[in-house]
Amino acid sequence: MTLKKILLIVIDGISDRPVGNTTPLESADTPNLDYFAGKGINGIMDTISPGIRPGSDTSHLALFGYNPFECYSGRGPIEAAGAGIELKHGDLAFRVNFGTVEGNGESVFEKKVIDRRAGRISDTDALVEAVSKIDLSRFGIEFTFRRGSGHRGAIVFRGKMISDRVSDTDPKETGKNVKKAKPLDDSDKARITAEAINYFMEEAHRLLDSHPVNIEREKKGLLKGNVLLLRGGGVVRKVQSFEEKFGLKLAFITGTTLIKGIGRFIGADIIEVEGATGNSRTNLRGKFSTAIRALDRYDVVLVHIKAADEFGHDGDFEGKKRFIERLDREIEILRELDFSEICMIITADHSTPVTVRDHTADPVPVTILHDGVRVDDVKKFSELKAYKGGLCRIRGRDLIHIALDLTNRAGKFGA
Amino acid sequence: MTLKKILLIVIDGISDRPVGNTTPLESADTPNLDYFAGKGINGIMDTISPGIRPGSDTSHLALFGYNPFECYSGRGPIEAAGAGIELKHGDLAFRVNFGTVEGNGESVFEKKVIDRRAGRISDTDALVEAVSKIDLSRFGIEFTFRRGSGHRGAIVFRGKMISDRVSDTDPKETGKNVKKAKPLDDSDKARITAEAINYFMEEAHRLLDSHPVNIEREKKGLLKGNVLLLRGGGVVRKVQSFEEKFGLKLAFITGTTLIKGIGRFIGADIIEVEGATGNSRTNLRGKFSTAIRALDRYDVVLVHIKAADEFGHDGDFEGKKRFIERLDREIEILRELDFSEICMIITADHSTPVTVRDHTADPVPVTILHDGVRVDDVKKFSELKAYKGGLCRIRGRDLIHIALDLTNRAGKFGA
Repeated sequence: MTLKKILLIVIDGISDRPVGNTTPLESADTPNLDYFAGKGINGIMDTISPGIRPGSDTSHLALFGYNPFECYSGRGPIEAAGAGIELKHGDLAFRVNFGTVEGNGESVFEKKVIDRRAGRISDTDALVEAVSKIDLSRFGIEFTFRRGSGHRGAIVFRGKMISDRVSDTDPKETGKNVKKAKPLDDSDKARITAEAINYFMEEAHRLLDSHPVNIEREKKGLLKGNVLLLRGGGVVRKVQSFEEKFGLKLAFITGTTLIKGIGRFIGADIIEVEGATGNSRTNLRGKFSTAIRALDRYDVVLVHIKAADEFGHDGDFEGKKRFIERLDREIEILRELDFSEICMIITADHSTPVTVRDHTADPVPVTILHDGVRVDDVKKFSELKAYKGGLCRIRGRDLIHIALDLTNRAGKFGA
Repeated sequence: MTLKKILLIVIDGISDRPVGNTTPLESADTPNLDYFAGKGINGIMDTISPGIRPGSDTSHLALFGYNPFECYSGRGPIEAAGAGIELKHGDLAFRVNFGTVEGNGESVFEKKVIDRRAGRISDTDALVEAVSKIDLSRFGIEFTFRRGSGHRGAIVFRGKMISDRVSDTDPKETGKNVKKAKPLDDSDKARITAEAINYFMEEAHRLLDSHPVNIEREKKGLLKGNVLLLRGGGVVRKVQSFEEKFGLKLAFITGTTLIKGIGRFIGADIIEVEGATGNSRTNLRGKFSTAIRALDRYDVVLVHIKAADEFGHDGDFEGKKRFIERLDREIEILRELDFSEICMIITADHSTPVTVRDHTADPVPVTILHDGVRVDDVKKFSELKAYKGGLCRIRGRDLIHIALDLTNRAGKFGA
């Protein structure tokens, strides 16, 4: 018997609250999505739990069987995983921006942030290298700093005296002073961690402000990347990799940094696809055909499609509808899959209603296609119809288990 | 952007098991409830969890987002909160009845209870004052005793040596001896608590039996309130107030003492309505119009309607149906609400089938009305139809989160 594979298509933020009596998804012409709904079993899903508004990060953790309430502690650890930093349980991780400060005096904390992206600096390799030489051993702390795309990066502090009870240093607005990290409780660990971060902030500013790369940028009239702004701090709660947890090889296909970070956090391989941008012009056909090929090598493949969410955030009903219709044309290629071998799930990570312009907890539609699923009467892929399907209402954390069961990869609990 | 409000209508015990093919609710003529069902999203709800028969107290805790398995330890703490006693975590609280004992000898435990309500005594203020002078300091214990309505009251014991592993002193039947509090485990705390309660029982009887109020009652041929019968003992598991937990101001409108107790336990304001009695002649119109006004000052308002439950306990199909029809006429006033501003939920705390004459775990119907809900095909408010709606089957503890999401008052978990 060949081992069956699981293909999970997550269309970020595809579902809505009704406008009048309809939604972008309900009103879109989607013959292929509807074909899949008609051949599958359908339902609605709370990716976290009813009424809890999911982030794309927390919901993806849940969709792969992790409890985000246990393992999620903010963006820092996810971004650090995404940047390729090897994480240990108890590490303290932050997202980092290169920014620009101006002002007199020595201390970085006396200076004002005039750009939180340092003029969208992108040549940060030498700056990262310089900063990496800062020595925090007097605090018993080590750190790893990695660049991300553009002005972005991630930093991880490690040591026995690390606490996550410290505040960010990013003021989150231009025109404000850089913030000192403050201990958020009375522990020695929080105090020492804050002291180490503040020392690091000063040293980084000193090194960066006089760095040849920045001197060169200044000559060209570009903003210096002379401060590191830390935010989204969280302690790493190390999880078993997906492969350790389920014995299955997992690949992520996504153009979105945050979702790549989730993938790395749970030990997925990230498959890059040319032109997979995470925006509405993304190479959907490329993602789907890459996924078909990846199913030869992997047990579980995620295809994450971002743009529907962006149209939701923009409140753009027509744009969202048109993107869904384009997606529907491109997804036709998946009709050729052999659903006796492959279990395909089409769903979303959360709703992003155009009326709310943000994520909501309204349940998402879910369709599961596989030989042997109990096909129901639902003939349309729509958040307004899916509740009538045979899955009724499920939770995100149960989805992977349902797929493992349907593909006969689940063990028996008991005799 | 104005903050949206939540109105929760809980019709105690409204749902049933079918008799023939119908129920009081299904067979009642309810054009207004049906109107709301048709404009909303519907489903069925397990207020605690499937198959768990809820009390009105535990189910109300769940409906406001509390886990009754964690915070509920019996009626004592709820009654004590309802009587206005300030509770601390670890206190031991009992419901108290003034009762009447007769018999020779000194000890209250040698005497028989001849009336568990002391002839429905109501003039208890002086008796409470007398008993409150009892000194338990030799046990390292303090207590607070408050009267309730009629023969009722509540008592709270506090101290380092308090344990809830002690038995009640109420024999629960007339003709039986007053029971000694017995330690229910081998701990010093349980032994000392039982000793203190038994000492209290003896002292209270001695003070009450010779109290002028009781001497006067005896002269008039009335039963003496000469014993305190303690039952429903439970240790206080202090919870965050609803306002601390959710940042929302909460009001309860109910004629029922137990539900007022739940309200006080979670820090709600109790709004009294003239003629709101908790029985079938209750002032329903007054409750609804009070609720409409209360929505100006509160974020979340509960209207609790008791009588359907009473008809269920009495096994009175026709009476229950007629009460539901009266309720339906009075609830018409809520059609004038602006459902773009107000999220209205109509549901129950549990079923009280006339065939069972007690609470059952059969799910209750739930309708949610608000701009943006995914209106479904359900056109009738009925426990026999609601499962076809877009909510499918939810749990009581999720309800408040769903309402917070729909009113855009929920935060996002993750990014």
